[in-house]
Amino acid sequence: MSKGRSPVQIRELEASAKLSRPSVIVGIPEMGLVGTIAASYLVEHLGLPEIGYVDSDLLPQVVVVHDSEPKEPIRIFGKGTLAVVVSEIPVTARLSYELASELAKWTKAKQGKMVVGITGIPSEDRVESAGNKTPIVLAVTNDENLRRSIKAIGAEPFEHGIIASTYAMLLKRCASLGIPNLLLLAESFAEFPDPGAAAAALQVLNKLLPIAVDVKPLLDGAEEIRLSLRGLMSQTQQAIQQQVTQTPPGVYH
Amino acid sequence: MSKGRSPVQIRELEASAKLSRPSVIVGIPEMGLVGTIAASYLVEHLGLPEIGYVDSDLLPQVVVVHDSEPKEPIRIFGKGTLAVVVSEIPVTARLSYELASELAKWTKAKQGKMVVGITGIPSEDRVESAGNKTPIVLAVTNDENLRRSIKAIGAEPFEHGIIASTYAMLLKRCASLGIPNLLLLAESFAEFPDPGAAAAALQVLNKLLPIAVDVKPLLDGAEEIRLSLRGLMSQTQQAIQQQVTQTPPGVYH
Amino acid sequence: MSKGRSPVQIRELEASAKLSRPSVIVGIPEMGLVGTIAASYLVEHLGLPEIGYVDSDLLPQVVVVHDSEPKEPIRIFGKGTLAVVVSEIPVTARLSYELASELAKWTKAKQGKMVVGITGIPSEDRVESAGNKTPIVLAVTNDENLRRSIKAIGAEPFEHGIIASTYAMLLKRCASLGIPNLLLLAESFAEFPDPGAAAAALQVLNKLLPIAVDVKPLLDGAEEIRLSLRGLMSQTQQAIQQQVTQTPPGVYH
Amino acid sequence: MSKGRSPVQIRELEASAKLSRPSVIVGIPEMGLVGTIAASYLVEHLGLPEIGYVDSDLLPQVVVVHDSEPKEPIRIFGKGTLAVVVSEIPVTARLSYELASELAKWTKAKQGKMVVGITGIPSEDRVESAGNKTPIVLAVTNDENLRRSIKAIGAEPFEHGIIASTYAMLLKRCASLGIPNLLLLAESFAEFPDPGAAAAALQVLNKLLPIAVDVKPLLDGAEEIRLSLRGLMSQTQQAIQQQVTQTPPGVYH
Amino acid sequence: MSKGRSPVQIRELEASAKLSRPSVIVGIPEMGLVGTIAASYLVEHLGLPEIGYVDSDLLPQVVVVHDSEPKEPIRIFGKGTLAVVVSEIPVTARLSYELASELAKWTKAKQGKMVVGITGIPSEDRVESAGNKTPIVLAVTNDENLRRSIKAIGAEPFEHGIIASTYAMLLKRCASLGIPNLLLLAESFAEFPDPGAAAAALQVLNKLLPIAVDVKPLLDGAEEIRLSLRGLMSQTQQAIQQQVTQTPPGVYH
Repeated sequence: MSKGRSPVQIRELEASAKLSRPSVIVGIPEMGLVGTIAASYLVEHLGLPEIGYVDSDLLPQVVVVHDSEPKEPIRIFGKGTLAVVVSEIPVTARLSYELASELAKWTKAKQGKMVVGITGIPSEDRVESAGNKTPIVLAVTNDENLRRSIKAIGAEPFEHGIIASTYAMLLKRCASLGIPNLLLLAESFAEFPDPGAAAAALQVLNKLLPIAVDVKPLLDGAEEIRLSLRGLMSQTQQAIQQQVTQTPPGVYH
Repeated sequence: MSKGRSPVQIRELEASAKLSRPSVIVGIPEMGLVGTIAASYLVEHLGLPEIGYVDSDLLPQVVVVHDSEPKEPIRIFGKGTLAVVVSEIPVTARLSYELASELAKWTKAKQGKMVVGITGIPSEDRVESAGNKTPIVLAVTNDENLRRSIKAIGAEPFEHGIIASTYAMLLKRCASLGIPNLLLLAESFAEFPDPGAAAAALQVLNKLLPIAVDVKPLLDGAEEIRLSLRGLMSQTQQAIQQQVTQTPPGVYH
Repeated sequence: MSKGRSPVQIRELEASAKLSRPSVIVGIPEMGLVGTIAASYLVEHLGLPEIGYVDSDLLPQVVVVHDSEPKEPIRIFGKGTLAVVVSEIPVTARLSYELASELAKWTKAKQGKMVVGITGIPSEDRVESAGNKTPIVLAVTNDENLRRSIKAIGAEPFEHGIIASTYAMLLKRCASLGIPNLLLLAESFAEFPDPGAAAAALQVLNKLLPIAVDVKPLLDGAEEIRLSLRGLMSQTQQAIQQQVTQTPPGVYH
Repeated sequence: MSKGRSPVQIRELEASAKLSRPSVIVGIPEMGLVGTIAASYLVEHLGLPEIGYVDSDLLPQVVVVHDSEPKEPIRIFGKGTLAVVVSEIPVTARLSYELASELAKWTKAKQGKMVVGITGIPSEDRVESAGNKTPIVLAVTNDENLRRSIKAIGAEPFEHGIIASTYAMLLKRCASLGIPNLLLLAESFAEFPDPGAAAAALQVLNKLLPIAVDVKPLLDGAEEIRLSLRGLMSQTQQAIQQQVTQTPPGVYH
Repeated sequence: MSKGRSPVQIRELEASAKLSRPSVIVGIPEMGLVGTIAASYLVEHLGLPEIGYVDSDLLPQVVVVHDSEPKEPIRIFGKGTLAVVVSEIPVTARLSYELASELAKWTKAKQGKMVVGITGIPSEDRVESAGNKTPIVLAVTNDENLRRSIKAIGAEPFEHGIIASTYAMLLKRCASLGIPNLLLLAESFAEFPDPGAAAAALQVLNKLLPIAVDVKPLLDGAEEIRLSLRGLMSQTQQAIQQQVTQTPPGVYH
């Protein structure tokens, strides 16, 4: 849009130099906070160091506090072949647009292998089974090879529908820069943080990438996570209501 | 308005070169989603290849997914003497203005024969007959010859009223570029997607253009289409409520 | 305001050259749609040809349809010493400002004799008499001679009050260009289109200008007009509610 | 703010030249319309001629009508050592800012002696006594000499509180240009126009300036004024609700 | 953001020259008005002279009145090693951003030792104990040394959560200029001004800085303060509702 300097900047810490053709996982709080829960768990479970953050006047005027220390709300962690972007705040329209562009450009500059978005999609099955049925993980991708491997990694094709907001822009921006982008949408609760849906997405990730994340601690701590994320959940639901909903319109193929 | 580069761009794929003085059909979701249903059915029924899409920062931040592949929400299909523009999202005020301008210019550049808009108009008859009466198709046109042939192609003249939004701007822009523009308004349900109204518009199109579209499959699949389009329907109704309504004011001739 | 090109342009058709120091009648839909009804009736009754229209990005994105032909919503009709501006859409704030400026300038360029605005003013008398009492027509003018002739033409002086929107700007702009401007406010219904109030304003016009308009057909067709204008009435009422109301504040003289 | 031409201009008529180091009284409709009532009464009672008006695109699109003649809504009257600014419309945020700046500059250019603002302040006493108790008049001033004479002119010091809108900006702008500014706040009704409060402010003015205004006719005509100002009252109350309220916060001195 | 002149300016009075590497206390009205009460009490108790104020078009159009004299709503007091910034109005989004930047820059220019923000955090304990339990004071800081001394000064670490608005921007801006910033959040009432919470914060300040403020008079005058601050309290609550809430989201460390 604007030809000048982007209103969103990715600031790197020194450790950032250690990345090597990384796969970039992106976790933004939307439906069920699935993206933020999965990405945060990855960071903690794999002990990934903080390597950068997103700086922008478009961000809300907040700092996130961890152990009495103020932190930026959207940070990047990683080492070796893995980078993880975690947002602890909902991302609204204008920021969405610019953040997706900058993340795609940053991945390009890092010679990243692919971008993997993780989020939730509302599911009646999930609600009716009271979370006891393992959530199906749907996949959308701009890359033909990835599209052929959807079933092999334990996901299902997403037949028809509309994807909105940051993940939609990420699909567009990655496509125009030639970066493979896979979006995983785990069936989730719409009203509560859903660690179970995050675990299902991570299981798919285990088959896609050379990682082996044990999701048992995530499932065991589900109740605690749900409580601690109540604040972010209600902010996210307000943000979602202001966006185009993720419902399937498609008439033809 | 702005003298610089338009905020709406029509991007062409290679196949676009194969058009030959095309008639350009435009289907945008409004009343009863008549335009989108009719245009989508044309594309599918005639097997028209994708030849371009609309690119703009004014578009909502969405991608439409078909078979796990992300697609632009406003696309152009066609071959030979026929081009079809299909929007899978409602088109709001500012975008309306620019989209109509660019479509008129693109048609001019392609030496297009005419532009045919398809949409619905609310009808009590349609509601009271529970959709059993064949919908009347009203016609408005900036071209004297087309106006004389309205009855011949099975439509009725639109006596007095106001036409709003994209189709109104299309009538204005085509007029100033000297392109004949015919707008077909099929009587339709206001509350539900109306494949029957779309079929009635296509019957008129069959008489206007050298095509022969069988609408029986469209009518047979009506219930399924209605269900699959619920999401787009509710978005469109919200968008319509923010626009000038299509009610007849006229006092004089 | 802006020093550059106005965002409102008056476009002339060829017939426009035939005007000769015209009195310019302006009919815009406000209270009771009195202005639009009176001006439209003048055009039809005197068979005035279309000689121009208002072009602007500030107009809503609509076309008005008459006999299947799309028309601009604000048009100018006239011949000889009479020009009539008719709007078939309510005119909102920003457009108001620019439209009044351009109409005053256009009148100046045409060496127009005066500008006569016609509109309604809410009246309890009108409501209580169920429209049976002949409406009083109040007059406001920036011209001393016209002010002295108010009673002679069958109108009454408007003692104290506020005039809002297009007609107010027209009074200001005409004053600064030295054009006499008379505003006629006929007592009218606030809730319904009021052809009777329009007829009363036309009777005053008959005494002011060298015209002789028979208002009987207007009164006979009142019911039909009221029905056909329901759509414009409800749009206009919404627009009025967003404006300063026409209620008298004045404390001193 | 803007370095260019102000969006508010004070236009002078010829009589304006006759001012001689004037005290400038400012009456803007706020609480109880006290300012407008007091200033209008001054103009009428002292027979002050119209000497200028405020011209601005920020004004609402209205004209005020007096005896069938359209007038600007904010006008300046005066002769000799007295100038009176009267607004017959509520003054909203942006206009407030610019109007105060221009009035201060104009006073400076006229070598004005001081600016005296008149307005109301809501009072439970006033309501409970049904207007029978003489309203107290509070005073705020940026000038040390005036502050010392507050009691001498029959006013009371305003201990702690917040003053909002045009009068606040006037205090700031006069201070930066070195013009003494006294603001009189008469206890008044919040819900009705309050000529009694205006009379109390005028009594203070009688002691401050070399004038002798008989307020008896104002008190006698109170009921009539209240009725004739209903329209402006309701507009003003709507405007006040959109502003910071005039309630005392102060913790320390 | 903008590269030009900041829309917020800190204007200094002469006394300002007397500061010597000051610690800068910042009191802005948020939860329980804790910041404004604590900072105002410091100013009054230590008899600090006024040394500057904040000037900006982003400020609301108000003056604060103390003893009939109009004052700027955000002022700076101080002498020697102490400066205190007190706002008597809530600080909204855009102003927040710029004010924090300018305060950080001003502290840098004064070679300030650190910035200490004081505010409240809602507490059920505070409500349930009817204010009888001594409020806990939580601390957040961008400085490692200060973080290690949190318990030593009688505060508690703030584990996880989000800090919004001016104090958040102040943490960010101080961090980028290398200024230590400590934010004290005293448990407070959300619905009432809370002098008890302000006293608790001042007790921590007594241990952090070379001052000895007796908080007994503050506690004794609590009821009076609560009454006199009702106006500011309700404005502040409205402002808070438009901001991101201060609730803990954190999933990981």
